[in-house]
Amino acid sequence: MAAAITRADIDAAHARLAQGPANFLRTTPLWRLPGAALGLACAEVWLKLEQLQVSGSFKARGMLHRLLAQPIPAAGVIVASGGNAGIATAAAAQALGVRCEVFVPQISSPAKQARLRALGAQVQVVGSAYAEALAACLTRQGETGALLTHAYDQPEVVAGAGTLARELEEQGGGLPDSLLVSVGGGGLIGGIAAWCEGRSRVVALEPVLAPTLFRAREAGAPVDVQVGGVAADALGAKRIGSIGFGVAQQHVQQALLLDDAAITAAQQWLWRELRLAVEPAAALGLAALQSGAYVPAAGERVGLVLCGGNVDPAQLA
Amino acid sequence: MAAAITRADIDAAHARLAQGPANFLRTTPLWRLPGAALGLACAEVWLKLEQLQVSGSFKARGMLHRLLAQPIPAAGVIVASGGNAGIATAAAAQALGVRCEVFVPQISSPAKQARLRALGAQVQVVGSAYAEALAACLTRQGETGALLTHAYDQPEVVAGAGTLARELEEQGGGLPDSLLVSVGGGGLIGGIAAWCEGRSRVVALEPVLAPTLFRAREAGAPVDVQVGGVAADALGAKRIGSIGFGVAQQHVQQALLLDDAAITAAQQWLWRELRLAVEPAAALGLAALQSGAYVPAAGERVGLVLCGGNVDPAQLA
Repeated sequence: MAAAITRADIDAAHARLAQGPANFLRTTPLWRLPGAALGLACAEVWLKLEQLQVSGSFKARGMLHRLLAQPIPAAGVIVASGGNAGIATAAAAQALGVRCEVFVPQISSPAKQARLRALGAQVQVVGSAYAEALAACLTRQGETGALLTHAYDQPEVVAGAGTLARELEEQGGGLPDSLLVSVGGGGLIGGIAAWCEGRSRVVALEPVLAPTLFRAREAGAPVDVQVGGVAADALGAKRIGSIGFGVAQQHVQQALLLDDAAITAAQQWLWRELRLAVEPAAALGLAALQSGAYVPAAGERVGLVLCGGNVDPAQLA
Repeated sequence: MAAAITRADIDAAHARLAQGPANFLRTTPLWRLPGAALGLACAEVWLKLEQLQVSGSFKARGMLHRLLAQPIPAAGVIVASGGNAGIATAAAAQALGVRCEVFVPQISSPAKQARLRALGAQVQVVGSAYAEALAACLTRQGETGALLTHAYDQPEVVAGAGTLARELEEQGGGLPDSLLVSVGGGGLIGGIAAWCEGRSRVVALEPVLAPTLFRAREAGAPVDVQVGGVAADALGAKRIGSIGFGVAQQHVQQALLLDDAAITAAQQWLWRELRLAVEPAAALGLAALQSGAYVPAAGERVGLVLCGGNVDPAQLA
């Protein structure tokens, strides 16, 4: 059984992060709008603008927390990721002044590799798929003893992500009635649901093409799934993390699937109507509302977490 | 002598706007960051995220206020503008359910014309330059009696823009020590400086290639200037408005010029490092800080107004 994450763990993560490098993590804005301002029949929509977080996604919270919570060997830190987890690890390592090695598959875009290098990371390009890069990363970690960060399935990473919900509650003077959260490997929803402990209705959202938590809930345990679609670079974990799944079984009230067309439409709407530039993974909340997959009550205050903004802006229009 | 705008006018504008169409104008976020988070040697930077305002710029405040303050004839409203003022007028007219006619020159992009039409406006494309579209607009206004909105030089428009500073002061629990404000025709800075009345150091920023207020201050009166450069679509007024100039002579402490390279660099930095997508006109404040044109004191809290986000996102990267 995986270690449960609790509110106390998230309070501790908050305190540890506050002792971390100055001026690195950002308190991201909470923007409260009347539902009608978005054409929605609910009282309020709370937009947590976490796409403005350092590194361009919420991942920086968990990665920095992992690095602060563990001793860092001379070999530094190591991670396998061509996406937000790799960028966040490299940014956190740079802020702490420690070495960072990132393993990415050959399909990883040159732009992302360049961004990792600009953050001071040593980039190792290995294999045609993520699994090969991961295998090489683990072999290397065994040789060097570097501290491994996992994109979602480490207690410090989940607790760090949970500080987002703690911050949101403080900013809002309370939690909204519901919180719609995108799910990849379960790190974000694990942290958020652990913080809420049922005090807000936490709804898990996944693409139809990446139903990692949805299938695990059907099966009663994490299972491998096929993943793809427009949000795969951020939500394309093949299996839900054991920590996130454990928390979700206790504190996530509902899991919904959304098709790629609804996700893309919501992403484009956020740019066109609100001038918010987000990646597809951050648009699932609005997609659930606009598509009718989630129907809030008339008086409901619905919270949406815009979890990342690492998008090619040319794709927004 | 132009009518002076006062804090009382801005309070009245705020009250009138609060009685306007529900769920149209937005309270935009104020994001306070330590200066060091932006690599700057000042205590704090306050980012007023007005690029998230309805219509994509601060102009919606002034245009809606003009429409609420005057009786609207059956012919509706009329404006000459291919830019933010036209979009804001069309959006405000749509929210009020009144007719709107917008005159634009042939150089106006098909994308902007399509956006105006999507807001329900009748678009009249006249002449090769703005002056011809304006002349046709004024002729037409004489025929129909429609209510004319001016992009910046009407008291209601300036007072409406001033509500931005009122909102910022409320959100921040006070004004920052300084406020860096981009200047085109002077509507925004007129409203902001009138609200501040010297309680915050208001610094006017213009492109070297569009020095409308700068030259007027040298001359002691509004004068025509040549305008061009990367921000000309928003800041390219040929002559400072008399209202804005009058307020600026009393309450604007400093006027600075910035070259296009500094403006573009700041605009790209805002996207790359903060994931804020803004138009060039909204980047002058950061450009002044990053270029050293404005050097804040160590303990200073500097406010930047991100005044618009109507940009082709492909230009951000």
